[in-house]
Amino acid sequence: MAAEQIISFTRGNPSPEALDREKIEECAQAVLEVDGSTILQYGASAGYMPLRKILAEWHGRSPEEILVSNGSLQILEFILALLLSPGDTVFVEAPTYDRTITLLRRHQVNLVGIHMESDGLSTEFLVEQLEGVVPKLLYIIPDFQNPSGVTTSYSKRRAIIELADRYCFWVVEDSPYRALRYDGSDLPTLLSMNPKRVLHLSSFSKVLSPGIRVGYLVAPHYSVKGVAEVAEDTYVTPSLISQGIAWEFCHRGWLQPHIDKLKGFYQPRLKATLSSLAEHLPQAQWCETEGGFFVGVTFPQGTDMEGFRREAKREGLALTRGENFFPQGGGERFLRLPFTALKPEEIREGISRLGKAAERASSLGR
Amino acid sequence: MAAEQIISFTRGNPSPEALDREKIEECAQAVLEVDGSTILQYGASAGYMPLRKILAEWHGRSPEEILVSNGSLQILEFILALLLSPGDTVFVEAPTYDRTITLLRRHQVNLVGIHMESDGLSTEFLVEQLEGVVPKLLYIIPDFQNPSGVTTSYSKRRAIIELADRYCFWVVEDSPYRALRYDGSDLPTLLSMNPKRVLHLSSFSKVLSPGIRVGYLVAPHYSVKGVAEVAEDTYVTPSLISQGIAWEFCHRGWLQPHIDKLKGFYQPRLKATLSSLAEHLPQAQWCETEGGFFVGVTFPQGTDMEGFRREAKREGLALTRGENFFPQGGGERFLRLPFTALKPEEIREGISRLGKAAERASSLGR
Repeated sequence: MAAEQIISFTRGNPSPEALDREKIEECAQAVLEVDGSTILQYGASAGYMPLRKILAEWHGRSPEEILVSNGSLQILEFILALLLSPGDTVFVEAPTYDRTITLLRRHQVNLVGIHMESDGLSTEFLVEQLEGVVPKLLYIIPDFQNPSGVTTSYSKRRAIIELADRYCFWVVEDSPYRALRYDGSDLPTLLSMNPKRVLHLSSFSKVLSPGIRVGYLVAPHYSVKGVAEVAEDTYVTPSLISQGIAWEFCHRGWLQPHIDKLKGFYQPRLKATLSSLAEHLPQAQWCETEGGFFVGVTFPQGTDMEGFRREAKREGLALTRGENFFPQGGGERFLRLPFTALKPEEIREGISRLGKAAERASSLGR
Repeated sequence: MAAEQIISFTRGNPSPEALDREKIEECAQAVLEVDGSTILQYGASAGYMPLRKILAEWHGRSPEEILVSNGSLQILEFILALLLSPGDTVFVEAPTYDRTITLLRRHQVNLVGIHMESDGLSTEFLVEQLEGVVPKLLYIIPDFQNPSGVTTSYSKRRAIIELADRYCFWVVEDSPYRALRYDGSDLPTLLSMNPKRVLHLSSFSKVLSPGIRVGYLVAPHYSVKGVAEVAEDTYVTPSLISQGIAWEFCHRGWLQPHIDKLKGFYQPRLKATLSSLAEHLPQAQWCETEGGFFVGVTFPQGTDMEGFRREAKREGLALTRGENFFPQGGGERFLRLPFTALKPEEIREGISRLGKAAERASSLGR
């Protein structure tokens, strides 16, 4: 690989090979043929009923407990519009998904970050914070977190759910990466542990296609009703053709085999990431994640991060600033590495360049 | 037609025959084949570039002045989020589109209705109001207005644009029905009269399909940039498959012939509406509209509207409450008749029932 070729560790995009154009084309055609008159007309703001039904089945819920929208971030925005007023308190993991921070800032809330440990947010710190103020909601990505890669342990899931019950706050469980486990075994969703306190978000973006924009909510029926009202006031009806395609794909039984194929693609990329980190950045800390799209790396205290970023740029690397993922400052030494859109050899080359940049920055700083 | 069959004058849906499933299916397939790798991936928040380009050409603008989203109501919401703070003043026509009123209320603005006359809003009243307070924006539907059917005259368009320049406020021109003119000739858009003050909204919902959810904005490039940022923060990327279909449909030159076909469907429905009103409700006032989806009817002062609604329900009619379209009260005697989803004979039967209901209510009231 030519040194001048830019390697981008910025956005968490699926690999181009992960997009099954032919099957999606077939689904578009089939669903329009069978149900075109519904799909091309205005419809319910909660989404395409056949898809709501199939998702309800998968989650052991009723269709009234499911809402489908143009991506799950859009649903998060509806939830925030429904539940929050300016000045309300919201807890998030620190670091957390940068777009969630942006949305929460838009709602002018008091944002509190609960720092992450290797097995999920610090429940000790969470309890301390709860003694001071009870948030309207806690936003958490328990599986293969964006940006850290951390999966919340069973005991912490238990603790979070119990605290939500005791202190009466909503838990928004954002779970788009959950199906993409390359190693180890699943932990129960927070939703399954306490369906009354949890608003569960998921998405077809990482397992089928981001460009079709299909995300969904599993929640108590009265919450779904509230969100559906905000949705209706905002866009009348979501994109039904997108939802029809997702339904047809599921209905044909194509989703699970497709996810298995994705795992086959992505597992070697994760392995390449973790082994290259051990080889080229042994001084840093990272999460030995077992799935998802990201590995979060933290550089040692005292690292000249500005020097490192300058050198990384010179090495032909595109990086995201770690600060973006921290709701209350900090994060200068944090680096998110998305690994799904890069081939294993690109990952190895990229992380080797990271190592060189770190070394150069450190020798310059001496 | 059986008297017991319910006739619904509620929602402004396109006729089922207006949805060309086969052509849309062909477009979905073709665009996925040619550009699937772009359409199925994350993309720009301002929308699918080929569609932005074709719309820019049509409007004699650059693609940077176009944004495409999941329906035009969604874009209106972005504009409001970008421009408004609680307590700001917004002017709307009275009556106006009920969903716009709902969105504006959500932004906690001071809403002022400018009453409609047969040739558009009262510019005299507009000037009076401007002497008191200058709004952040004026929202107007100048072509075949929803719900009244009124088209704003050329001289009033001129006056509105001049006032916007003199007093410095934005004009949001919502124009989804413009292409559906069944009689008479086009007036220039407000956009074409003053591209610097006008945010022009349009949509494929009425001319292709509502369920694909494709609406667009034509505006100064810095406004488009601002809206695109709000859009990115809200949903990352709009539904690209929907936009790909719309593009393919336009690119093949199918849109204008399709619109011509729609005019063929809808013109007899409008004629049936107007002639039946003359026959069965001669005491009421309505707009002799030349296009769009709606005829707004106003009953004479002193009409027992509660009695009328009760009788109309008994006659098997489903109606929308007129009050919904008025931002500051009133509208009890207003009735919106959407005529596109009903066959001419259903329209004639429906309006004859309206006449009976009015007569019965009036004789009961005596």
